[in-house]
Amino acid sequence: MTDEPLTAVQYGIGPIGSRIVQAANRTGVEFVGAVDVDPEKVGDDLGEVAGLGESLDVTVTDDAADALAADPDVVFHSTVSSVEAAAPQLTEALEAGANVVSTTEELSYPWWSNATVAEELDAVAREHAGTVLGTGINPGFVMDAMPAVLSTPMATVESVHVERVQNASERRRPLQEKVGAGVTEETFEAEIATEAGHVGSTESVAMLADALDFDLDEIEESIEPVVADDRVETEYVTAEAGDVAGIRQVAHGYVDDEAVVTLDLQMYVGAEDPHDRVEFEGEPDVAVAVEGGYHGDVSTSAVVANVAPTVVDADPGLATMTDVATSYSRHR
Amino acid sequence: MTDEPLTAVQYGIGPIGSRIVQAANRTGVEFVGAVDVDPEKVGDDLGEVAGLGESLDVTVTDDAADALAADPDVVFHSTVSSVEAAAPQLTEALEAGANVVSTTEELSYPWWSNATVAEELDAVAREHAGTVLGTGINPGFVMDAMPAVLSTPMATVESVHVERVQNASERRRPLQEKVGAGVTEETFEAEIATEAGHVGSTESVAMLADALDFDLDEIEESIEPVVADDRVETEYVTAEAGDVAGIRQVAHGYVDDEAVVTLDLQMYVGAEDPHDRVEFEGEPDVAVAVEGGYHGDVSTSAVVANVAPTVVDADPGLATMTDVATSYSRHR
Repeated sequence: MTDEPLTAVQYGIGPIGSRIVQAANRTGVEFVGAVDVDPEKVGDDLGEVAGLGESLDVTVTDDAADALAADPDVVFHSTVSSVEAAAPQLTEALEAGANVVSTTEELSYPWWSNATVAEELDAVAREHAGTVLGTGINPGFVMDAMPAVLSTPMATVESVHVERVQNASERRRPLQEKVGAGVTEETFEAEIATEAGHVGSTESVAMLADALDFDLDEIEESIEPVVADDRVETEYVTAEAGDVAGIRQVAHGYVDDEAVVTLDLQMYVGAEDPHDRVEFEGEPDVAVAVEGGYHGDVSTSAVVANVAPTVVDADPGLATMTDVATSYSRHR
Repeated sequence: MTDEPLTAVQYGIGPIGSRIVQAANRTGVEFVGAVDVDPEKVGDDLGEVAGLGESLDVTVTDDAADALAADPDVVFHSTVSSVEAAAPQLTEALEAGANVVSTTEELSYPWWSNATVAEELDAVAREHAGTVLGTGINPGFVMDAMPAVLSTPMATVESVHVERVQNASERRRPLQEKVGAGVTEETFEAEIATEAGHVGSTESVAMLADALDFDLDEIEESIEPVVADDRVETEYVTAEAGDVAGIRQVAHGYVDDEAVVTLDLQMYVGAEDPHDRVEFEGEPDVAVAVEGGYHGDVSTSAVVANVAPTVVDADPGLATMTDVATSYSRHR
């Protein structure tokens, strides 16, 4: 770790990408390039596009090769959820000699569902002595890396159950609509269930199981509506009693038909006690609660910015958050 | 990481050392030597001395060189709290080519109070391509490495406050006596306050401050009695109302006269709500509680056993838990 500021290229300047720019700028990262396909953003200054309130003297381009020519230490990548779709972008960044921290959900642990892409990215990263990591608050921390760390003082772990309950009332309109707040159960089944799912639950189950040394046979996911007991009114929607308030998505990892890993994610309007909670059975049992739960929007960009120095120093290859989660020195 | 079992020497077979042998044996570690100065233990089998209930085919010796000749991957070291006192033992193990995981409290982060010894150990470790780490539940995890990890999703950290409250009623007689349960406040001041203190608070403050990028000016510690409000009776002692129930030890790390790190450790009989609790001020505020708190006795040996594979694979030198805490694959 040197005292030289890290240099970075921002690849994708949507809502999350903009927050990453803000978070990384605050930690002292020096931006040297920016990529986005949106013609409205190309040609503008990164600081302006990312809502920083000041210029960064970096012009947004739609030509990734052009931005990567600045030879950044790290590329902050935030474009798509699918690792297959992201792979060409990640590969180009690695081939340019950069390390990559990405919010592509399926990249957080692609070895289970996308093993071929994982092997290819790992090989490219090693060949070019770079590290590539997929991260965020979820997947990437609260339901996978954090529980892995919290198990350190346990002699044995028999099973783990993680519950994340978020109150969608406090979130933006698109999020409330996405989880089906205010629709009927019939509409939920027809229109919401197939679209609303959080991407990354399978990856979190697989990552956490790997860290806990569970050799999983199977991972299963389910999505169901959370139904409002009482009327809930938000700034944007109203859910009458009996209407859908949001979603509940549960993922199980099985060994011999026993669910050794359970991740229970609930996001609905009117949630009265939002929290993150980890419960282990083992020697001894352990229960840990994050009061109110980690904030969804702030946290992903903070995780990306905070782990960047560790990723730059890490061994080459495709890393996961259980490799690097704590090994960082925070830049305030 | 290979699938070969780690080989280990146990150096020090007191209560904690014995638990380490049990925990490591369960994870598949193969013991190849054992050292203790107690003539009652020398010549006996390690499994028997450590209360394993089975032989390990390892004879305890008081000659460290003899045990180290077995060329172990790792030495589990558990003899003294002082890093200065431990240094010759650690050095001998490193010079023999081993990695070392030690419960020497002051080794957890010796750079603040014992910088010269830290530099010497770091140099010896690098010279012999080994890693040496001081760890345990506290110092080593609950008041330093764990809070560092829990700050990962925060954009900024302004201050951190960690509280660990343990109920001494459930612990052994020597522990209850050590914290002064049942004595008067006068006796506490005269006989207990100077002896009862937990070793490692300064190290935890310094380690956590380093991880959070606080450049501390000063660390201060204080010890005071916890006085019983009501009569408390345990298996071993009775504290009348007004008597001492145990100790409260508070350590502060200061930047510009502001306490940015506060560690508050309380251990007393009759504690009704034992817990570990981490509170951050920053963006955003975060509060995390370990219900009931991590178990003091089980946890230290589990931490030692669980981090061993990571320490064996780590870069050479004197490591701290914020370098290695999550980067492990658990061996169940």
